[in-house]
Amino acid sequence: MTTASLIITGCNLIDGTGAFADRPMTIWIDKGRFGGIWPDGQREVPVKDIRAIDGRGKHVIPGLINSNVHLLDGIMMMGHGGVEYLARFEGRYHEVIEEAAQIALKAGMTTVFDTWNALEPVKLARKRINEGRVAGARIFCAGNIVGMGGPFSGDFCLECRPTMSKTFADRSDKLFEAGVGRRLSALPPEEVRAIVRDYLTKEIDFLKFAISDHIVIGPSYQSLGPIGPYLTFSERVQRIIVEETRRAGLPVVTHTTSVESLQSAIDLEVDAMMHCTITGQVPIPQSTLEDMVRKCVWGEIQPSTEKYQKALDKKGGRWAKSAGGVHRENAIRLIQADGPILMGTDAGCTDPDILAELSEEELDERSFTLGKDHLNWFVAMSQMGMKPMAMLLAATRDVAKAYGKLDDLGTIEVGKIADLLILNGNPLQDLKAYANIDTIVKDGLIVDHQALPTKQVVTKSRFWCDDPSLVES
Amino acid sequence: MTTASLIITGCNLIDGTGAFADRPMTIWIDKGRFGGIWPDGQREVPVKDIRAIDGRGKHVIPGLINSNVHLLDGIMMMGHGGVEYLARFEGRYHEVIEEAAQIALKAGMTTVFDTWNALEPVKLARKRINEGRVAGARIFCAGNIVGMGGPFSGDFCLECRPTMSKTFADRSDKLFEAGVGRRLSALPPEEVRAIVRDYLTKEIDFLKFAISDHIVIGPSYQSLGPIGPYLTFSERVQRIIVEETRRAGLPVVTHTTSVESLQSAIDLEVDAMMHCTITGQVPIPQSTLEDMVRKCVWGEIQPSTEKYQKALDKKGGRWAKSAGGVHRENAIRLIQADGPILMGTDAGCTDPDILAELSEEELDERSFTLGKDHLNWFVAMSQMGMKPMAMLLAATRDVAKAYGKLDDLGTIEVGKIADLLILNGNPLQDLKAYANIDTIVKDGLIVDHQALPTKQVVTKSRFWCDDPSLVES
Amino acid sequence: MTTASLIITGCNLIDGTGAFADRPMTIWIDKGRFGGIWPDGQREVPVKDIRAIDGRGKHVIPGLINSNVHLLDGIMMMGHGGVEYLARFEGRYHEVIEEAAQIALKAGMTTVFDTWNALEPVKLARKRINEGRVAGARIFCAGNIVGMGGPFSGDFCLECRPTMSKTFADRSDKLFEAGVGRRLSALPPEEVRAIVRDYLTKEIDFLKFAISDHIVIGPSYQSLGPIGPYLTFSERVQRIIVEETRRAGLPVVTHTTSVESLQSAIDLEVDAMMHCTITGQVPIPQSTLEDMVRKCVWGEIQPSTEKYQKALDKKGGRWAKSAGGVHRENAIRLIQADGPILMGTDAGCTDPDILAELSEEELDERSFTLGKDHLNWFVAMSQMGMKPMAMLLAATRDVAKAYGKLDDLGTIEVGKIADLLILNGNPLQDLKAYANIDTIVKDGLIVDHQALPTKQVVTKSRFWCDDPSLVES
Amino acid sequence: MTTASLIITGCNLIDGTGAFADRPMTIWIDKGRFGGIWPDGQREVPVKDIRAIDGRGKHVIPGLINSNVHLLDGIMMMGHGGVEYLARFEGRYHEVIEEAAQIALKAGMTTVFDTWNALEPVKLARKRINEGRVAGARIFCAGNIVGMGGPFSGDFCLECRPTMSKTFADRSDKLFEAGVGRRLSALPPEEVRAIVRDYLTKEIDFLKFAISDHIVIGPSYQSLGPIGPYLTFSERVQRIIVEETRRAGLPVVTHTTSVESLQSAIDLEVDAMMHCTITGQVPIPQSTLEDMVRKCVWGEIQPSTEKYQKALDKKGGRWAKSAGGVHRENAIRLIQADGPILMGTDAGCTDPDILAELSEEELDERSFTLGKDHLNWFVAMSQMGMKPMAMLLAATRDVAKAYGKLDDLGTIEVGKIADLLILNGNPLQDLKAYANIDTIVKDGLIVDHQALPTKQVVTKSRFWCDDPSLVES
Repeated sequence: MTTASLIITGCNLIDGTGAFADRPMTIWIDKGRFGGIWPDGQREVPVKDIRAIDGRGKHVIPGLINSNVHLLDGIMMMGHGGVEYLARFEGRYHEVIEEAAQIALKAGMTTVFDTWNALEPVKLARKRINEGRVAGARIFCAGNIVGMGGPFSGDFCLECRPTMSKTFADRSDKLFEAGVGRRLSALPPEEVRAIVRDYLTKEIDFLKFAISDHIVIGPSYQSLGPIGPYLTFSERVQRIIVEETRRAGLPVVTHTTSVESLQSAIDLEVDAMMHCTITGQVPIPQSTLEDMVRKCVWGEIQPSTEKYQKALDKKGGRWAKSAGGVHRENAIRLIQADGPILMGTDAGCTDPDILAELSEEELDERSFTLGKDHLNWFVAMSQMGMKPMAMLLAATRDVAKAYGKLDDLGTIEVGKIADLLILNGNPLQDLKAYANIDTIVKDGLIVDHQALPTKQVVTKSRFWCDDPSLVES
Repeated sequence: MTTASLIITGCNLIDGTGAFADRPMTIWIDKGRFGGIWPDGQREVPVKDIRAIDGRGKHVIPGLINSNVHLLDGIMMMGHGGVEYLARFEGRYHEVIEEAAQIALKAGMTTVFDTWNALEPVKLARKRINEGRVAGARIFCAGNIVGMGGPFSGDFCLECRPTMSKTFADRSDKLFEAGVGRRLSALPPEEVRAIVRDYLTKEIDFLKFAISDHIVIGPSYQSLGPIGPYLTFSERVQRIIVEETRRAGLPVVTHTTSVESLQSAIDLEVDAMMHCTITGQVPIPQSTLEDMVRKCVWGEIQPSTEKYQKALDKKGGRWAKSAGGVHRENAIRLIQADGPILMGTDAGCTDPDILAELSEEELDERSFTLGKDHLNWFVAMSQMGMKPMAMLLAATRDVAKAYGKLDDLGTIEVGKIADLLILNGNPLQDLKAYANIDTIVKDGLIVDHQALPTKQVVTKSRFWCDDPSLVES
Repeated sequence: MTTASLIITGCNLIDGTGAFADRPMTIWIDKGRFGGIWPDGQREVPVKDIRAIDGRGKHVIPGLINSNVHLLDGIMMMGHGGVEYLARFEGRYHEVIEEAAQIALKAGMTTVFDTWNALEPVKLARKRINEGRVAGARIFCAGNIVGMGGPFSGDFCLECRPTMSKTFADRSDKLFEAGVGRRLSALPPEEVRAIVRDYLTKEIDFLKFAISDHIVIGPSYQSLGPIGPYLTFSERVQRIIVEETRRAGLPVVTHTTSVESLQSAIDLEVDAMMHCTITGQVPIPQSTLEDMVRKCVWGEIQPSTEKYQKALDKKGGRWAKSAGGVHRENAIRLIQADGPILMGTDAGCTDPDILAELSEEELDERSFTLGKDHLNWFVAMSQMGMKPMAMLLAATRDVAKAYGKLDDLGTIEVGKIADLLILNGNPLQDLKAYANIDTIVKDGLIVDHQALPTKQVVTKSRFWCDDPSLVES
Repeated sequence: MTTASLIITGCNLIDGTGAFADRPMTIWIDKGRFGGIWPDGQREVPVKDIRAIDGRGKHVIPGLINSNVHLLDGIMMMGHGGVEYLARFEGRYHEVIEEAAQIALKAGMTTVFDTWNALEPVKLARKRINEGRVAGARIFCAGNIVGMGGPFSGDFCLECRPTMSKTFADRSDKLFEAGVGRRLSALPPEEVRAIVRDYLTKEIDFLKFAISDHIVIGPSYQSLGPIGPYLTFSERVQRIIVEETRRAGLPVVTHTTSVESLQSAIDLEVDAMMHCTITGQVPIPQSTLEDMVRKCVWGEIQPSTEKYQKALDKKGGRWAKSAGGVHRENAIRLIQADGPILMGTDAGCTDPDILAELSEEELDERSFTLGKDHLNWFVAMSQMGMKPMAMLLAATRDVAKAYGKLDDLGTIEVGKIADLLILNGNPLQDLKAYANIDTIVKDGLIVDHQALPTKQVVTKSRFWCDDPSLVES
């Protein structure tokens, strides 16, 4: 199903540099990278024994890159369902992550940046995918968010604890915190420095830290009003974290939930700021917004489609506020200012038991369901005024740029890793084209995307007996 | 490791009839049943090609029978830990039950009566054990307790629900309720009759129903004072349930938690009454106690050893009250009255994450840990004055009698199923002898009890990756 | 404002016997009782110095009687708001009760039967009203419902306890339980007998007991599905309670929440059954319904107006089920069968802080707000098909009959206590007439109903300082 | 009971300057201030018509000053009991505060600094005491802690909300937050500036702000492990708050709960730091401690006596950690470094229902019970090595100094406000002498301290009827 050398001819090329080729193009892929790109017929095919794809009538774009996923569903851990999810898959978290990476890949995301996950499982999945042992989107991972507690701490769902065993709760928190949990906020600067320095040796691809907290209130309190976000680290300590990460040569990204923490992130000129428009329903000050644009500090935005926002508003509660109200205004202002925006979604592989509670409307438009997440992102951003080409770049080149991966990823240019999508339509004219995939190429190889996911861990249906053969008779 | 025909010579025989052989005995087992029993040397061995066991210096007793277990740990579902337990093993409940049945068998319990469990999984495990596909104690099962809700209903741990998915909670409740849940208490008599009649066709071995409720208050409220038990069914409906069960030819047993529900059970002359001394800390009226003895309505008792009771009393809370205080007095009065007592423990295969929270003292003496449960029962009952022979009968013959299985089980008599234990000591002189097992014979076959459990489902240790080979390098 | 001898002339009389006078009538009241009733002009006024009221164009009906109120708001104690309510008014519960009795009186209810309340406070209020020291509807009271726990027990809002002082919670439960709380369900029959016998000496006007439980699940669990009701007492004990109450010469009424407990109440031929159509959403069996009609066992019904039911259904949760669905069907069937129905509402003096959370629609139509409760009852019952005259009797004569007070109350007949309402319209033609009161006469005295309540305890508005004079300057 | 001009002769004077008079002294008080102080017999008494006190054998010290109280019990609001407390006394909070101020005064505290309270009620009480309309310690107040939410927010007991009316919860939060609540942490710097500037016009005596959060987890979660404290404000915003307070001419004090927030407070050179040794069980870095001493930034310490700490440790939970472990070590290090220490206790007028839950040991040694609080402070600090004279100054002169009140308060010097205690023993030799008060003088007037509190609001015993005269007969 795959081949070492590949040529695509006659295609409409949107190469991710912002340009749009004005004639049919040939793309030659060799040894996993782009070997040459030229107008049809202009050059000879350089090798024999090559697989050829007729790209006539198709559009070719770079493989999509999601700047913010949690392949082990992070959203669920903020509310109900976390205990059962983690217990059900304990010991197999890497398989959950692999399934998620396959669902992402099937949908056209050849690369994902996992910005919060259990460190060891996500590293194992990354390794197995990189070694070609299992299929999946290319994973770059951060492990824990420095300064944030585990799934059963006050940062996620402390309310689960009274009905759990302490053993399991503590073991889970320890796995996710990976030594850089909430406790760091209590320590003196130099102790934080030493811990972060140690964490940077653990084969993470980039470091993410919390400037402000998670603003999470457990399931019973969902209907309570807005709660002021707190700062996790003083400016002194923020600087130390950034300094150490720079020294280790890694990108540094932030979690912020207030205008003040956002300002800090911009002052620090971090590489990317997750959900940068979520500011406790406070408008981003104009000066902050201008700073961000001027310094080109990349900001991920998590918008809702109009339809989804309407469904959330009807329900009320914290999710309604996540992308609505002032946060929506923030996003529109940033779009209008041509700000540095990244596509990202916080999406993961949500448990079907949770999905079963949702209305059909929510199911379709929910931005946290991996595989549909980026499609909803395109629709939502478009509704707020973002231009088609800007959106395409925000989901390809710009993510690579923000994370320092532009030498290898993000555009279709000679020498880069050969990740691309052959679409049946033109995504600059019709956003639905993103969902209408003819062929996915990753690392120069054609992906058998129909076969994904290869192993259903999370998504399989549940019955009282896993092995149906035991039940009958 | 097993053999079809077996002879044991020279043993001290305590055959479970109440007698104690005064000379060395020979026991011949053929085709899974006792073929003959005689004083050593009195008869010839009837067949060739027979496996012989030298029983000199050993004591032989019937295989032990536990009148009340929950092979899928029921205790845990009354408090914290239930969500993770059920999620972790969903789809493999039958394997959990099989592991539990193996742990019981390894400890000498050749037969167990499972008085509350998920119906389909326990039936599957029963079938697989009966067909010899997996090892394990012989299981007789009731499925749900008629009138009782599932693990996430008010009868067990409703408090889990706010942090769970409704889908999983409802699916679990449905599986356990098996159509005869709490809702029955709201229905008119004839509707209850029809539902019970249908339930009796579902291949249960006996029927258990709740006369009074579970007196369960979730984890936050454990320290609240005693709460008055309620009646699940009116006397009218109780009679209908018993009537239908008798008509189906099955034994009927009860769950009671008050003196008034106990009186009803005795009036109904049911076959056995679980935890009959648990009466909301109210002394059983003398007339009730006398009724029970006179009519010989069997009552299971769940005592605590003195050491364990002390540990519980120090902690306080509902468990301290379970076997202590007036409940202990009830038990002593019943023992002194030579009442009809059965050995039973409510034990199951507790999750190691829960056990990890317990003190060493609790771990040893806890009556709910299958495999140690009956040993603690013997110690505790002895401390309250029960005689060694009476205890042995309460754990063998009398359980078989109560459940109508005396034709096949409970004693070592010619024609019965050949279940026996060869002990290295004399259990009538030293209770520790019950734990010092030389050989276990079930269905006439020698059990390789060292090899049990054959598959560790619940009891295996947990790490972030189930497959250690993936982790290193 | 009041007068010892009173004459009303020219009025349209609906005397509560079921008759409707066909000519203008004169009613003479003397020494608090009806001295004579005759067609206008037929007799001389018997005394001098008499106050005369011109009743032309008015309608006169007996003072209304509510068969089921909780003057200390019982509804609130089933959910949120109970802690603050009880703490706020502790030490002044009798004043709360008095204010409620005044609100009831102002709305035309000259007599109320308080079927659950703190015993000592309600007795004190009853005494003070009876002695004329404060105004208010005539109170007959039961104190606690025998077998039911206090406001912070599992029968009301156990979930409040974790955030309360144990001292206050226990003190409150003790006050409300008055020695006949939930614990009784755990006791042997003869102990219950002794306790009930003692309780009957405590100057209660009638005894109420629980046959089935409260089906109450605290605030977090409101959205959980239907939960099967349990029985509080065995039939044996039920008979003892009724027997003792009859021996003491008092009426006995019941709390039931299932078809089975309803059947028991009918079998016992109790005097009245509260909320008899609330049966866990199970249709009352036809035979039960026929028994009830045949034996004329009075049943109070708590209906919702169509508008209110719609508002509740939109919200969902337990309150939607209270009067809707099958319960509504039950009520319609009972109306169609000309069953023995009483007007009652469970209403009390709800805290304005709770009312502030309600929509305007709910505020108007809510059946638990004393003073509006009976008006909504008339509308709702009318919507379900009950006839105007039947409704009037259900709110006057029939309540008196059920509770054995017909010699003194319930109709306008010579010799009876002179309680009546002079309405500006005809309530048999327009239900709004019940709210359009010209004059209220209680015990033969004109009530200054505009001045009620004379002291605002619950209903006054709240500010950080009770004494505004302290605040300014 | 009071007199305008007063002379005390023959007393042993400890004037609060650090000196100890070596001969019997005469103190002359006139018009509320110290008119003269001289060795006995050295001068004439300046006026006629003067009240004379024979001070022979007595010790005279300045009136004690507590740097940190919450006259409306703040401790309770962090856990259970808050709802009932606030509901019970709503409308009368100023009376609760007055009672507390009287209890403080009776125990010798002539001045208290209330560092968190409902703003309007505490101002009303302050006014009434200052105008002499009610007795009580002199109150200086801050109102809310800037940046902290109300009693039913996440900073105190959010867990109360599900069982409360939203109306009451919101009203209470609004009263306590006084416009400077938790929301401020979400706002941009200049908006915070404007709000703080406005708050400074509200007649507060000093401003207190939170640098880090309350580390409060509701009642169910008390047993969870340590939780990292968060920062409420960025350094940028901290500077703005201090700047505005200085501009308004008021002292500024801080709430800190971590080493990092403590360092910020020292960098800002605030006037006083409450509970400065509470640092999330992290040792204060040596450099931070040296900064504090060098810059003389006053720190209040809340120690436990050894006996009380033992009782707390036995119980476990968060209170055990409050003054124990590393926090105790912090305090000892600060004492050994002769650091700038203030006496303060967080004490208030605790509800007797809460006190009823405590052991006798806790009752005696509990540091939060106003009236006993400072006595336990002296014992505890002494046990950790603080010298008698240093302790006396920490409870008199140094508090006045920190809060900028040294011109009027803190020592017995000519011209200052005449607040003093005449003790029967020598407090520098025996700490019990602080409790053995002969006479209290405040504002030059003798306080009838036996008569305090003049009105029992909180402390009166509770019965179902406030007016016993209604009950009997």
